[in-house]
Amino acid sequence: MWQANAITNRLQVKWPILQAGMAGGTTTPELVAAVSEAGGLGTLGAGYMSAGQMRDAIRAIRARTDKPFAVNLFIPESCDGSQPVAESVSSVMNEVRERLGIPADPEVTRFAEPFEEQMAVVFEEQVPVFSFTFGVLEKRWLAELKQRGIITIGTATTVREAIALEASGVDMIAAQGSEGGGHRGSFLPDSPSNLIGTMALVPQIVDRVDIPVIAAGGIMDGRGIAAAFALGAQAVQLGTAFLTCVESGAHPQYKRSVRETSDEATVITRAFSGKSARGIENEFMTLLAPHDHELPPYPVQNALTRDIRNAAAKQDRTEYLSMWAGQAASLSREMSAGELVASLVEETERVCQGLLKK
Amino acid sequence: MWQANAITNRLQVKWPILQAGMAGGTTTPELVAAVSEAGGLGTLGAGYMSAGQMRDAIRAIRARTDKPFAVNLFIPESCDGSQPVAESVSSVMNEVRERLGIPADPEVTRFAEPFEEQMAVVFEEQVPVFSFTFGVLEKRWLAELKQRGIITIGTATTVREAIALEASGVDMIAAQGSEGGGHRGSFLPDSPSNLIGTMALVPQIVDRVDIPVIAAGGIMDGRGIAAAFALGAQAVQLGTAFLTCVESGAHPQYKRSVRETSDEATVITRAFSGKSARGIENEFMTLLAPHDHELPPYPVQNALTRDIRNAAAKQDRTEYLSMWAGQAASLSREMSAGELVASLVEETERVCQGLLKK
Repeated sequence: MWQANAITNRLQVKWPILQAGMAGGTTTPELVAAVSEAGGLGTLGAGYMSAGQMRDAIRAIRARTDKPFAVNLFIPESCDGSQPVAESVSSVMNEVRERLGIPADPEVTRFAEPFEEQMAVVFEEQVPVFSFTFGVLEKRWLAELKQRGIITIGTATTVREAIALEASGVDMIAAQGSEGGGHRGSFLPDSPSNLIGTMALVPQIVDRVDIPVIAAGGIMDGRGIAAAFALGAQAVQLGTAFLTCVESGAHPQYKRSVRETSDEATVITRAFSGKSARGIENEFMTLLAPHDHELPPYPVQNALTRDIRNAAAKQDRTEYLSMWAGQAASLSREMSAGELVASLVEETERVCQGLLKK
Repeated sequence: MWQANAITNRLQVKWPILQAGMAGGTTTPELVAAVSEAGGLGTLGAGYMSAGQMRDAIRAIRARTDKPFAVNLFIPESCDGSQPVAESVSSVMNEVRERLGIPADPEVTRFAEPFEEQMAVVFEEQVPVFSFTFGVLEKRWLAELKQRGIITIGTATTVREAIALEASGVDMIAAQGSEGGGHRGSFLPDSPSNLIGTMALVPQIVDRVDIPVIAAGGIMDGRGIAAAFALGAQAVQLGTAFLTCVESGAHPQYKRSVRETSDEATVITRAFSGKSARGIENEFMTLLAPHDHELPPYPVQNALTRDIRNAAAKQDRTEYLSMWAGQAASLSREMSAGELVASLVEETERVCQGLLKK
């Protein structure tokens, strides 16, 4: 039965529906709490948050719900911010800064929030579920999470990554298909292509690991949820679908762009962060596309574009905003997160019944 | 109910399972007939066949089954074979020819089989179902197909293409997700990306057209079939899954490569034909990848690589063979097409029941 399984039991949620941990202000405490209150699992996308911001957000979630929720972080990478940025890249970015009326070549001192500090908050606040992307957790973190009874979810975009995550000891795997919006969780290199569609990815991962699999990528309604369960997933994770909810902190113009987009509008870009992510193509992406091979890696490029993204948001200039969205974004809806969860459950039930009804 | 709907009624088949029209010798009359005999719809991939070869194959199918089957053709493009080929491209190809021990710069006189002659066979043989890729059929063809009661299936890789096909008057649409192996049926340019995963593509097309939709791309077993029906499709089309069947004419080494492949092994290339197609990455693709922008268009490049593909097949050199395959090829099985259809039906039923069982 789609509604109740190893994942709902383990997460202690009513419905096997996770709201993805979108970083960058989308996952407000209001959104996370509303999803969890409705019986799903809300996730705080805390990748870009300082320890203090995380603590405040987690407490704000707890003030709104006593249900379980997750916190999502990025596995850190070694980073050398002292390397000079290619002239071609900084020239494009300074041109954009000029159009936005902000200073050229801003000084960047902090490239990413310290992971140790972020993890300390996860432990101190005794977060119920911890999910992560961009790698495998170090043994010491996983050991402490397990000891504290915190459930762990790793993110895989290929069968190899799923196998590596299972071997590392995580409790569950989010299988992220190429349709998905936002950052790709990929971390293992050296393959012809890791852009694997959800329809192909989920059953191949399910066949190769013994831990439960959460399907993600292109899932927007009960049809997608029923499809994911048919493929062998025991839960689903939706990002774009929750992004347009009223509680989401996404910029109003960004929400509108997502609701009005088409299946062909998104591309995978490294322009905003140095890591591959899917979003609605805009001018910032096309300006930097010819210089992709010269972009500094994550988190350097991410830090270097921060002033641009902030100014673009303030000035409502969607052409310079990172508008992450999946390939089925046109199916998004404007409603409260609680209404969305209820609709998803009702739709999924109807779709499953319809497959057998004469 | 997944088993019976507008498509099974219209096609007069027992199961809503189509075997894709893979061109290039894979879809032998034995394979097509075996699929149709088992209650699915076999398809002759006739894109590269002369009128005479088509007629022989269609008669060979009919000698084996009185059940409906389909013939698949490519919508023709204007083609100028007199344009000189870029030096970089012909130098790579001649290097490959040298390794295969075949003459450099072979003279090519025929670039594609005349579409008029191919269509004449479709009409003369009164083929039950006609499917096509790479475009919209001219009005005169569609009028004659309709008049003769031949059912038409167009191929869409985006919502825009599905809308264009419906407006043209086809009976059904095959929605081909980016997971799919072989040539992409795309024909409308000018979009950020048309590589849309099946999970995202099918529901968006279903919502925008009134004619029945056949899901394709990454579907390999009952899980994929049930998922496709959950997404709103009324039938599925499987290529890679039938490619490894015993009746398939695919090269034995090619079949083995498909069975032993991984989710990350395929890429989209224009190296073999000038048109984008998904296959297992090999040396021929990597040699021509740096020259992608200089490749002649389809059907010129296709004609220019014919001697290489033929010699590679004779010499069992898979590094120069076009090994089209989808992203879930690792789920392929070696069995007869009849056994495969029976397994798919049984699996799909089991998956659908499992979604509701307590």
